Amino acid sequence: MSNVRAAITGVGGYVPDYILDNQELSQLVDTSDEWIMQRIGIKERRILKEEGKATSDLAVRAIKELLEKTNTDPEEIDLLICPTITSDLVFPSTANIIGYKLGLKNAFPFDISAACSGFIYGLELASRMIEGGSYKKAILVGAEMMSSITNYSDRATCPLFGDGAAAVLIEPTAEEVGVMDRILGYDGAGIVSLNMKAGGSLRPPTHETIDNQEHYVYQDGQVVFKAAVSKMSDISIEIMNRNNIKPENLSYLIPHQANLRIIDAVGRRMGINKSQVLINIERYGNTTAATIPLCLWDFEKKLKKGDNLILTAFGAGFTYGSIFLKWAYDPE
Amino acid sequence: MSNVRAAITGVGGYVPDYILDNQELSQLVDTSDEWIMQRIGIKERRILKEEGKATSDLAVRAIKELLEKTNTDPEEIDLLICPTITSDLVFPSTANIIGYKLGLKNAFPFDISAACSGFIYGLELASRMIEGGSYKKAILVGAEMMSSITNYSDRATCPLFGDGAAAVLIEPTAEEVGVMDRILGYDGAGIVSLNMKAGGSLRPPTHETIDNQEHYVYQDGQVVFKAAVSKMSDISIEIMNRNNIKPENLSYLIPHQANLRIIDAVGRRMGINKSQVLINIERYGNTTAATIPLCLWDFEKKLKKGDNLILTAFGAGFTYGSIFLKWAYDPE
Repeated sequence: MSNVRAAITGVGGYVPDYILDNQELSQLVDTSDEWIMQRIGIKERRILKEEGKATSDLAVRAIKELLEKTNTDPEEIDLLICPTITSDLVFPSTANIIGYKLGLKNAFPFDISAACSGFIYGLELASRMIEGGSYKKAILVGAEMMSSITNYSDRATCPLFGDGAAAVLIEPTAEEVGVMDRILGYDGAGIVSLNMKAGGSLRPPTHETIDNQEHYVYQDGQVVFKAAVSKMSDISIEIMNRNNIKPENLSYLIPHQANLRIIDAVGRRMGINKSQVLINIERYGNTTAATIPLCLWDFEKKLKKGDNLILTAFGAGFTYGSIFLKWAYDPE
Repeated sequence: MSNVRAAITGVGGYVPDYILDNQELSQLVDTSDEWIMQRIGIKERRILKEEGKATSDLAVRAIKELLEKTNTDPEEIDLLICPTITSDLVFPSTANIIGYKLGLKNAFPFDISAACSGFIYGLELASRMIEGGSYKKAILVGAEMMSSITNYSDRATCPLFGDGAAAVLIEPTAEEVGVMDRILGYDGAGIVSLNMKAGGSLRPPTHETIDNQEHYVYQDGQVVFKAAVSKMSDISIEIMNRNNIKPENLSYLIPHQANLRIIDAVGRRMGINKSQVLINIERYGNTTAATIPLCLWDFEKKLKKGDNLILTAFGAGFTYGSIFLKWAYDPE
């Protein structure tokens, strides 16, 4: 085993300007700010409204900021992983399109499909590739245009999702920072509870699938809620225990932002304080693969070198993962 | 750098029973066996006709064979990568569904999107994960139900594609076999020449996209043909040169099977004999991410331990890659 660790050395993010708030949503479906705040804790979400733009455009803006902040030449990037469930096209990959738009000529680009756990799965991949020594500068960009697969006539799901992207630069380090441990997995029993019914080889798009509204996120909210709380807390407690991290020694938990009540319940089960949990769901909603890096982006100034972070996610599949990370740099 | 190499230690495959031959195709579109054989060299392709089945079902059959042949317990598998552009669902991933159907409880499952280079891209990923020492038994399964995205009223593209899946087991080895070298890349200038117009966040499915037949493979055949020949031969020659492999020392070239004339041209440019090129396109057509492992499956009995193989692919993106592999085992 090598002594090289993979560290996040920069963060960039982007959310579109347009704000879809609960007031506007209550004009589309039978809902209210009070109902939404009580059950899911989302005030507003960003929506990409520009004609002809899609997920890659969000990612491009996030990566541009990342390259500028870290003073990185686009041609230095040798790996580009885009976890997304809202790829621009069915093929080629969104990473391919992003790389082309940004001139990342030397990047090895591909998308991965792992739904809300996409960023965690991608961080496992990117960190392993960096630890192996053959890749030196990886970009992992969680990017989603969830508005393209959200049913704005379904009051149960349309308040949940928003558009956004955030990217991290991942580099090798010999210091005791970066990805320290990980627990990743899936439970296929959850396939039926959170999915998209049509649009793949099982049910290619037809007039019927469109009339049946099968090209949107389908969710059995109660099942997902319970499974998310227990799995994210179980694996986060396990990773803390096996790395001897007591609740008071955890700097921050950075959970996937799907529902404020899920996040609160996970924090309680882990025995940590509210101040130890980074949350921005009220402003962006669930941006699927982008939630965790958008949190890193939002709260980057709070993070100090050596901070013990746990990133955790749960999503369609069910996929899940917790990663223990020591933050690699101080705020500017 | 570690001394562990990643070797393919088994192959399983599956193609559906239904044979769509050129005779039947000539009843669907204005074409003929002669026209197809002259231009692309495909006699027949397999089509998944069973109601309610999709890409994961092909993969499951291929992996079942693989597990049996290699006498592997499903719970030993710790990594499951499925390159595909015809995922069962938009989410969760096909790997997730495959893993659930097969009881691969301990696998870390995800799909990657890299089109016709999917198997090569996936082999790079899987081999790096194995070389790193944290994963011990990976399955890489190229699986496609291309019939779900083929326009059977377009004479230019409908003869090209077929359905199928093949899987390889990848394990660490201390011997001088397995993945020895790789060249991977992409050229985003090719995005416009080979893609699917709708079905993603750029153009979500609508009645209009369906009426416009935008949910099928679109290809500018001439552009793709030229780029495929030059790129696959250039990188294969480069990888031979830098590993001191003379044409006579190459056991076999295993090219992506998109068009027999592309394959022939690549072989000629590489200065190798026809007998050194493994070809099964006439029976299966282009199965996208499944072509290369289906070739390994078909010709497994020809392969001997220590054989110098070059796997090469080119596809939408444009993505491309060549991998130099020393085969790890003798035929039974």
